[in-house]
Amino acid sequence: MGKQEKTAISPTRAEDYSEWYQQVVKHSDLAERSPVRGCMVIKPWGYAIWENIMRDMDAMFKETGVKNAYFPLFIPLSFLEKEAEHVEGFAKECAVVTHHRLEKGPDGGLIPAGPLSEPLVVRPTSETIIGESFSRWVKSYRDLPILINQWANVVRWEMRTRIFLRTSEFLWQEGHTAHATEAEAMERTHVMLDVYARFVEQVLAIPVIRGKKTPSERFPGAVDTLCIEAMMQDRKALQAGTSHFLGQNFARASDIRFQNADEIEDFAWTTSWGSSTRLIGGLIMTHSDDDGLILPPRVASAHVVLLPIFRKEDEKAPVMDHCRKLAKEMRGIDYHGRRLVVEVDERDIGGARGWDWIRKGIPVRVEIGPRDIAADAVFVGRRDRGHREKTAMPRQEFISQITAVLDDIQQGLYDRALAFREAHTRSIDLRKDFDAYFTPKNAGRPEIHGGFALSHWCGDEGCEARIKEALNVTIRCIPLAENTAPDDGACVCCGSPSPRRVVFAKAY
Amino acid sequence: MGKQEKTAISPTRAEDYSEWYQQVVKHSDLAERSPVRGCMVIKPWGYAIWENIMRDMDAMFKETGVKNAYFPLFIPLSFLEKEAEHVEGFAKECAVVTHHRLEKGPDGGLIPAGPLSEPLVVRPTSETIIGESFSRWVKSYRDLPILINQWANVVRWEMRTRIFLRTSEFLWQEGHTAHATEAEAMERTHVMLDVYARFVEQVLAIPVIRGKKTPSERFPGAVDTLCIEAMMQDRKALQAGTSHFLGQNFARASDIRFQNADEIEDFAWTTSWGSSTRLIGGLIMTHSDDDGLILPPRVASAHVVLLPIFRKEDEKAPVMDHCRKLAKEMRGIDYHGRRLVVEVDERDIGGARGWDWIRKGIPVRVEIGPRDIAADAVFVGRRDRGHREKTAMPRQEFISQITAVLDDIQQGLYDRALAFREAHTRSIDLRKDFDAYFTPKNAGRPEIHGGFALSHWCGDEGCEARIKEALNVTIRCIPLAENTAPDDGACVCCGSPSPRRVVFAKAY
Repeated sequence: MGKQEKTAISPTRAEDYSEWYQQVVKHSDLAERSPVRGCMVIKPWGYAIWENIMRDMDAMFKETGVKNAYFPLFIPLSFLEKEAEHVEGFAKECAVVTHHRLEKGPDGGLIPAGPLSEPLVVRPTSETIIGESFSRWVKSYRDLPILINQWANVVRWEMRTRIFLRTSEFLWQEGHTAHATEAEAMERTHVMLDVYARFVEQVLAIPVIRGKKTPSERFPGAVDTLCIEAMMQDRKALQAGTSHFLGQNFARASDIRFQNADEIEDFAWTTSWGSSTRLIGGLIMTHSDDDGLILPPRVASAHVVLLPIFRKEDEKAPVMDHCRKLAKEMRGIDYHGRRLVVEVDERDIGGARGWDWIRKGIPVRVEIGPRDIAADAVFVGRRDRGHREKTAMPRQEFISQITAVLDDIQQGLYDRALAFREAHTRSIDLRKDFDAYFTPKNAGRPEIHGGFALSHWCGDEGCEARIKEALNVTIRCIPLAENTAPDDGACVCCGSPSPRRVVFAKAY
Repeated sequence: MGKQEKTAISPTRAEDYSEWYQQVVKHSDLAERSPVRGCMVIKPWGYAIWENIMRDMDAMFKETGVKNAYFPLFIPLSFLEKEAEHVEGFAKECAVVTHHRLEKGPDGGLIPAGPLSEPLVVRPTSETIIGESFSRWVKSYRDLPILINQWANVVRWEMRTRIFLRTSEFLWQEGHTAHATEAEAMERTHVMLDVYARFVEQVLAIPVIRGKKTPSERFPGAVDTLCIEAMMQDRKALQAGTSHFLGQNFARASDIRFQNADEIEDFAWTTSWGSSTRLIGGLIMTHSDDDGLILPPRVASAHVVLLPIFRKEDEKAPVMDHCRKLAKEMRGIDYHGRRLVVEVDERDIGGARGWDWIRKGIPVRVEIGPRDIAADAVFVGRRDRGHREKTAMPRQEFISQITAVLDDIQQGLYDRALAFREAHTRSIDLRKDFDAYFTPKNAGRPEIHGGFALSHWCGDEGCEARIKEALNVTIRCIPLAENTAPDDGACVCCGSPSPRRVVFAKAY
């Protein structure tokens, strides 16, 4: 191994993946921990990614007929209790509002006052409160389907938090639909999974596996949970979106009834589906390298930074002026439905600027000095290539090629992530190979294990639990049938017959 | 007076303004009360207005250099206590989180458990939590200014709530900026007031008066509060946006310090500014009539509805087909930066459809039947005109004219609102005229009073309080100097010298 080059992020992924992640977040200025336990502050560079996610995903929802609405932040405790599995699933992590004002306490400080007659839970998810509205909105089959989404904050009081991946408060969207028939609700569950898969692959450049959760991994109260699963660079799986078929469970709990065309009363069939700021965590862990964040252009906070270069004071004004003009011209260019975002870094801090933007993951860096201006050229670096690999280009060619360059970066990131997943996915039939695959080779680097195993599972929850107990490996999903040929075999745990392989992995 | 025509909303504005408002909200399907005390459900037709407000206002913020971010929902009690006036202003309406999980109580039901060591307040506004971040972000004058906005939900526990106008939870944006100099912070306070004024006038078609609040009406903790005030159809004032100059009060409380260019340490100068879903309440009360909601086109949930008309079953398919094609063609048209939103109402409920859309306030209704198709014409009704006043137009002309028609409706609504305000604004010098102006003429209709009075005020808080006590009339604002010529006079309350007139009114 040759001389190790110094990286912009320390430790590297290989040295300490978990700490590398925290350092990438910090040095890219995406977000930070707040003084409020488990809650994060999403800084402008990070929030811009969320704005891009919201805009593009929202457009895809609307294409399928979904409309946005907004429901209360607070859920009366009695509502949450209506669905037994549901409340059981969330009771341990609920922020509870018990008072509605503050007053002076005996020692002069403020204390909670005005106790509420019924405690309110800060929504961990909104099936029960939205169900109550649906029960009033639906009377006849003519009122169905209802296709609603809300962009909101939710709170799940987590004991161990990790920025973007697991925080007590996070931002998300939650879709809720109600239908007259089981088939239609099931179709909607699949339609929304397909939206998530297309969005995550096309916009975030993260390849995903579409599948169904086993009963033990289902959303509390759901009949079926569909999911998309992605592989991070530590070879662990990240669930990137879920779509739940709720059957009539929540309709019964919330009393969502309707008269069908034959005037027979029935409960509606409902679905819910969600994705969150966790996607940003997945984005970081899929693409970034030891120099920091790498942003796919379609979701990047900004696309291009112009770095004016000058040595003498009298060079400054013409170089700045040239850069501002170029930025203005480029900001008129359309890139996948939004205007190109072009930054001009006018800070007087020399070479440190370039590394700043590398760590922030901007797709394209452009250096422009007096000699470039004289030659009507620009000097271009791409974040998906080595930081020394820069190319001189005629200015006009650069402008006319920029969207193609961005698309090339986007596709390259996707291809690289897909190749990584394929290199670390293996069909495994024998339990001893399975154990070896998931056993870290080096005790100091627990993240270095095999990756995804495609192995047979008989369907028994006991086998699933024993593997989890032994290896901390779980079934991430049963891949959707349309993507997998029938493949009879024997359960990797007990040897019983199995109709198809499932995806086993360690997971976030 | 001739025969009274039946109106779509009952009661009418003249009969009972407050109940009329509730009925307009209900029949336009904008929003509804939720089972959670004081919280509302914003339904898709209402939320689409909020989406339009967010998109256009957000673009205006960004043009001034503001970036979006996101800060925690919860504020530790100790943070809120840092600024004495501030906590005093909000203590009576705080939702307080005291526990972080639920567990089975003695009678088997769930009860709050896991008490927090420090209670958390659900943000009523975020100066203190954002200030804490700013204190870490700012070290040198080079880190300033910081120009941040967040779109979020906030909670102020209100005892008497009214949908959109005063709810316990509402959606808003809150901007927070920090500057190196007092002059720059004051300039920003004015820049954001100007954004609000332009937005409300141009997009919501509501004329506003720009002014400054008296000390008694200031934001708790602010040095100065600027505001825009609009007149509703009951002649009361609605505050439609506020921009606060916070001086160094919150910087001191949150310890936001920086070194200036001379390496001298100073506290930053901060501002905050906000507007909320209350704007939708103002929109309703400014434009709507006794047939329901009237939406200005620039903020309308949809612009045009096509109503297919047919008598015989065999006419249905060609009429529907024609309408869908027309809708598709029109949806490609750009209207002030967004695509035209065109609905086709395919419901089989006859004439009730037209009234549905009138009550929902859609700007343009288009009826299309077999004879119109034969003549290649459409039959157009405008929501700003009488419901019987419809015009036949060649289809192609209608398409080419639609954005001009919408702009005409937008301008007409603004002009009408301005004329209404001018008709109900009067300069009043004598206390007896002032009293008569604000004294209802009819005990059964307390809303019928004068409107806005431009009267002299000496600057004494006692005079202000006495007028409020006597008439429930307050000083809505001191109009900004640039808009008002000096006009010496005598205080309408005590007769002492006064340098200029202020706006007195009853208020929401």
